[in-house]
Amino acid sequence: MSSNSIGKLFTLTTFGESHGYSIGGIIDGCPANIKIDFALIKKELKRRSPKSEFETKRNEIDDFEIVSGLYNGVTLGSPIAFIIKNTNKRSVDYDNLENIYRPSHSDFTYSKKYGIRDPRGGGRASARETTSWVFAGAVAKQILNAHNIEIAAFVSQIGDIKLEKNPPSPSPFFADSFITRCPDKETDLKIQKHLNFILEQKDSCGGIITCNIKNLPIGLGEPIFDKLPARLAHAMMTINAVKGFEIGEGFNSAILKGSEYNDEFIETKNQIRTKTNHAGGTLGGISNGEDLVFRVAFKPIASILQKQNTVDTDGKATEIEIKGRHDVCVVPRAIPIVEAMAALVLVDFLLIAKAYKL
Amino acid sequence: MSSNSIGKLFTLTTFGESHGYSIGGIIDGCPANIKIDFALIKKELKRRSPKSEFETKRNEIDDFEIVSGLYNGVTLGSPIAFIIKNTNKRSVDYDNLENIYRPSHSDFTYSKKYGIRDPRGGGRASARETTSWVFAGAVAKQILNAHNIEIAAFVSQIGDIKLEKNPPSPSPFFADSFITRCPDKETDLKIQKHLNFILEQKDSCGGIITCNIKNLPIGLGEPIFDKLPARLAHAMMTINAVKGFEIGEGFNSAILKGSEYNDEFIETKNQIRTKTNHAGGTLGGISNGEDLVFRVAFKPIASILQKQNTVDTDGKATEIEIKGRHDVCVVPRAIPIVEAMAALVLVDFLLIAKAYKL
Amino acid sequence: MSSNSIGKLFTLTTFGESHGYSIGGIIDGCPANIKIDFALIKKELKRRSPKSEFETKRNEIDDFEIVSGLYNGVTLGSPIAFIIKNTNKRSVDYDNLENIYRPSHSDFTYSKKYGIRDPRGGGRASARETTSWVFAGAVAKQILNAHNIEIAAFVSQIGDIKLEKNPPSPSPFFADSFITRCPDKETDLKIQKHLNFILEQKDSCGGIITCNIKNLPIGLGEPIFDKLPARLAHAMMTINAVKGFEIGEGFNSAILKGSEYNDEFIETKNQIRTKTNHAGGTLGGISNGEDLVFRVAFKPIASILQKQNTVDTDGKATEIEIKGRHDVCVVPRAIPIVEAMAALVLVDFLLIAKAYKL
Amino acid sequence: MSSNSIGKLFTLTTFGESHGYSIGGIIDGCPANIKIDFALIKKELKRRSPKSEFETKRNEIDDFEIVSGLYNGVTLGSPIAFIIKNTNKRSVDYDNLENIYRPSHSDFTYSKKYGIRDPRGGGRASARETTSWVFAGAVAKQILNAHNIEIAAFVSQIGDIKLEKNPPSPSPFFADSFITRCPDKETDLKIQKHLNFILEQKDSCGGIITCNIKNLPIGLGEPIFDKLPARLAHAMMTINAVKGFEIGEGFNSAILKGSEYNDEFIETKNQIRTKTNHAGGTLGGISNGEDLVFRVAFKPIASILQKQNTVDTDGKATEIEIKGRHDVCVVPRAIPIVEAMAALVLVDFLLIAKAYKL
Repeated sequence: MSSNSIGKLFTLTTFGESHGYSIGGIIDGCPANIKIDFALIKKELKRRSPKSEFETKRNEIDDFEIVSGLYNGVTLGSPIAFIIKNTNKRSVDYDNLENIYRPSHSDFTYSKKYGIRDPRGGGRASARETTSWVFAGAVAKQILNAHNIEIAAFVSQIGDIKLEKNPPSPSPFFADSFITRCPDKETDLKIQKHLNFILEQKDSCGGIITCNIKNLPIGLGEPIFDKLPARLAHAMMTINAVKGFEIGEGFNSAILKGSEYNDEFIETKNQIRTKTNHAGGTLGGISNGEDLVFRVAFKPIASILQKQNTVDTDGKATEIEIKGRHDVCVVPRAIPIVEAMAALVLVDFLLIAKAYKL
Repeated sequence: MSSNSIGKLFTLTTFGESHGYSIGGIIDGCPANIKIDFALIKKELKRRSPKSEFETKRNEIDDFEIVSGLYNGVTLGSPIAFIIKNTNKRSVDYDNLENIYRPSHSDFTYSKKYGIRDPRGGGRASARETTSWVFAGAVAKQILNAHNIEIAAFVSQIGDIKLEKNPPSPSPFFADSFITRCPDKETDLKIQKHLNFILEQKDSCGGIITCNIKNLPIGLGEPIFDKLPARLAHAMMTINAVKGFEIGEGFNSAILKGSEYNDEFIETKNQIRTKTNHAGGTLGGISNGEDLVFRVAFKPIASILQKQNTVDTDGKATEIEIKGRHDVCVVPRAIPIVEAMAALVLVDFLLIAKAYKL
Repeated sequence: MSSNSIGKLFTLTTFGESHGYSIGGIIDGCPANIKIDFALIKKELKRRSPKSEFETKRNEIDDFEIVSGLYNGVTLGSPIAFIIKNTNKRSVDYDNLENIYRPSHSDFTYSKKYGIRDPRGGGRASARETTSWVFAGAVAKQILNAHNIEIAAFVSQIGDIKLEKNPPSPSPFFADSFITRCPDKETDLKIQKHLNFILEQKDSCGGIITCNIKNLPIGLGEPIFDKLPARLAHAMMTINAVKGFEIGEGFNSAILKGSEYNDEFIETKNQIRTKTNHAGGTLGGISNGEDLVFRVAFKPIASILQKQNTVDTDGKATEIEIKGRHDVCVVPRAIPIVEAMAALVLVDFLLIAKAYKL
Repeated sequence: MSSNSIGKLFTLTTFGESHGYSIGGIIDGCPANIKIDFALIKKELKRRSPKSEFETKRNEIDDFEIVSGLYNGVTLGSPIAFIIKNTNKRSVDYDNLENIYRPSHSDFTYSKKYGIRDPRGGGRASARETTSWVFAGAVAKQILNAHNIEIAAFVSQIGDIKLEKNPPSPSPFFADSFITRCPDKETDLKIQKHLNFILEQKDSCGGIITCNIKNLPIGLGEPIFDKLPARLAHAMMTINAVKGFEIGEGFNSAILKGSEYNDEFIETKNQIRTKTNHAGGTLGGISNGEDLVFRVAFKPIASILQKQNTVDTDGKATEIEIKGRHDVCVVPRAIPIVEAMAALVLVDFLLIAKAYKL
């Protein structure tokens, strides 16, 4: 299976370098007879586009073209290929980078692995790739929506500024009304202030996204190596700049005792629920009917406008001063990416689960 | 592909319930002509066995049998099937659990997903499964060793007791001389004290394992969806009780600025290295020649000897008092499991990389 | 994915050399809550065992052991591992073969590919492997039976003796009452005579099996690369000694004109059928509701008791005289193997189709 | 894995309906640093285009666009996406077909499977899809060529006119100088005459292609379920209109005795060869160094210009008279398709074999 593919039944295979002709992908295994909601796709792509002053000035108009798999806007059951042109590529910004390795970029590893690299932008390693994921995720979300499954991610930390309290069972898009997508007025403002400070310093910063998914049926996820948290972790760790994944109590589990951590089962009308949700929605790798709650950690982006020490492609020490239009913090823009990757994982498990409904 | 399989070229497919006849698996894609080091396999299985007073009194003698794939102890290139009998199963301990859902166990989700469950022990969800992983990991390690790649995991936190400083570039097995596998005398003693306290309270506790891998060649990992950290996260999140994964600075990345996080490239003799290793050994999902460093968070195990509230299989509220022989803390025993899963991921990428050496 | 695995949702992974400790496999993706019919498994294994004078005198008692995946005989949804011991291995028969390449055996290619081979029997390339397939096929058949799908293979040619007319829509096992499994009294006798002649000549001979599958739902098979005939061809061509596969008119299609070949659609009560079935049950790679009819060609087995010219492992010319207990013709015994492989393919597509029922 | 994907390391994933915006695909797993020979790609696509009077008048100019994976014409190691526009689609020809099932077309099965179908042309089931395969095959051939592996297919039968004798070890393109691609002057003429006759009758006819591959290294193909003939059969049976596959003696094996069929090993300088090649180049599913020789049977194409009986989508009996530009016989045009699919299979196995070179 292609290393540029994800999924077992509902699959996405992607292509494209950031400054090449186009990026795009092929969605396969999408059920037939779904009327594609183009407005939702556009909305999701727009959510990923830079908007605030802390985000790249690159004007990414993500005009997509669906070149197969639909007839009169309805899915045929055949592969849905889509193309997103790279309209606003300014390779000139990258001209001075051909013979130099940018610190914490993949220039170095791509060069060594392949013996060649695309010097225009980040090539295949650029976050532009995630546009295709958001596109495919928007298709996946339509199927999930039809099953009432709702995905809502939000910013829970930027730098050392943390959201105090998670919103309980949030709805999709609820965080979009906040500039930093941190769904608390005060924290949102604090983060804006912090980002202004980072911007002035020509620096960048990271953060954490929390994702909450509600109305998942019980039984998604497959033992042993297709556990739901394992597939989610895999999907999240493929996102550019992501350095950590945790579900439920995550790393905090280490300091809890079993008596504190365990989620008691309780009797509710016609349903077994848990009193608490430290597990974050799965038991034994399988969804248990509680909200799925996981967190994803992003490092600060590598492209900062300060002078940095590095080496050239011959290994000689040199300095670099990156120019161009870069984000101060990508975390708010990564919300739709996290949601999209979650949607791709979930729709795949949903189809697999249907295969076993006797 | 079977959800009980992992790997693309070097694959492991496992089977077995904890209290059934046996567990085991099939390793496929192992190169031919490797003389299997049975002593290493035994050593790794023994490392996973309970030893200290904080671990289950269940005497697991993991006698394995290799039933195919070898001729005179040398690999044939054909599937290596192995069987590990469940010799010391005491299903009686579980008799009272058939009609009850144990808090934070997968009894509930397995029952709902499959409409049936194995009431003996944890069935397929039991950590006994990991014995097969350690077995396969021991085979994988032999191939990695031949490439000089060394994996060394150690306990870096139990409860709120943390190892102050990571050992730099540790060697395999170095932590085994410490009872809690936390490689610092003082911290080791503190943790023992803490575990005694937890034991008295009939409670359990979690912790964190750090894994350090050295001498990785540059270029392991495949963009986009087979990034090395993504495959590692996937593998680690399949381990029972694991709730989080991070690589390099991980969640701490969120509070670092780009200028603090970025790893400068430096000129060393004949090699490009980085001055720091905040990335934890990968760039763009591909190994960069630095030590691979990741951390895995474990929740406290669910089986505590205190009375707990729960429901029965009809959803009626009830109480449960789990009996039997359970670990207070599985983290020290999980060291070889973390290493084994890392070995399986790495050997697979190593083979794939060889396919592309022109 | 392991090259010793087949299937996407319903998978079989096998292991074992013919003269090693045991052969066996892991079935994964089998739905839960199926009461396994052990008698059917035994029956199928027995159908594969030698019976007539034209078949090996090796007394293969295929005692199997299911070591996981069942509780009280009912599937748990977890991997079903099974072991079939090699009880009657007489490696002594093979002692003189260690340094010689048997004509038309895979000794040569295995040695060259792996740099090592198992000199006992055919190692992994032995047809003993197919016992595991028959086992797994018997499990698959139970699921198919529950959907009313019936598989019936029969011998349609041995040497140049051909069955004149295919039986219309035959039922499972219907050919078993004929010694050669060619379901026509006269032809059966002719073939017996021919086999006696071949036996006397210390020679071997091949033949053709036709397989007929009825009551398939419309819609099995996935475009483009998972077309039903393509997956069937793949499965059949993995069977030892198989050299050809054809569906419907197969090779005879070449001489038909479109006006002769085309299957007219006709109106029947509540159903669209075709007047003829030259296609053999699929259109565009997808089952069309007609009987699936395909044919599989077997070469004569390589082990003949005549002296043959060959080379030794150093490449020096030599002679060989194979001893031991070998079949004159394996085609009748291959009936359950062909059916089993068909069952594995069909049950996989059946599950996939269920995933897409909206 | 997408059912529109083929391959394990070197993969092709395709998309596109015959009368939609475009067809195309993504090649992944292609080694880096290969200078793409665009002329070869064009040549192969042209070989697939209709040329003679027996082939569709549809003027398919297969202008392709490579939208990713290359930098200055050299492969980057990243996915190579290509697009082939459907420039000359005349959906009007198909307007009367929306409510009718064409005999022996997949209209019926696609409709039933998906509950919807693309009424323009054959949708996804059209042979136009094979253009993408030829494209990808041309890339694969470049890698094979660098290993000296040569693929040469030719027409060996049309209707009942057969090539008497196979050309021994033919070179690529050798059959292209014959109008029908049957590489014998006299037979070529006979076939032309026959095709004229079929054309006059408004009928169509099938045929057989033989493919010969030389200079394959020993050791390609993976036991058990990835045997080389099994993967080839799978690949060939995905080609539109293909109804049969055989390797070496194929179906003729049935009438040979072991003493006739067995290929004696012989001593040649520094190499072990076989005296004959009844096996067709593999033993135990693994290439043995002899020419790989297989045959593929094509049915007559379904679209004939005669009036035919059929049913409409409501199941009511009706008549159909297909119009438009259709081939009388696709077999000559299928030569590059057969070669392309063979190339895809072989390059995949070549990469896998490299992974295991120690």
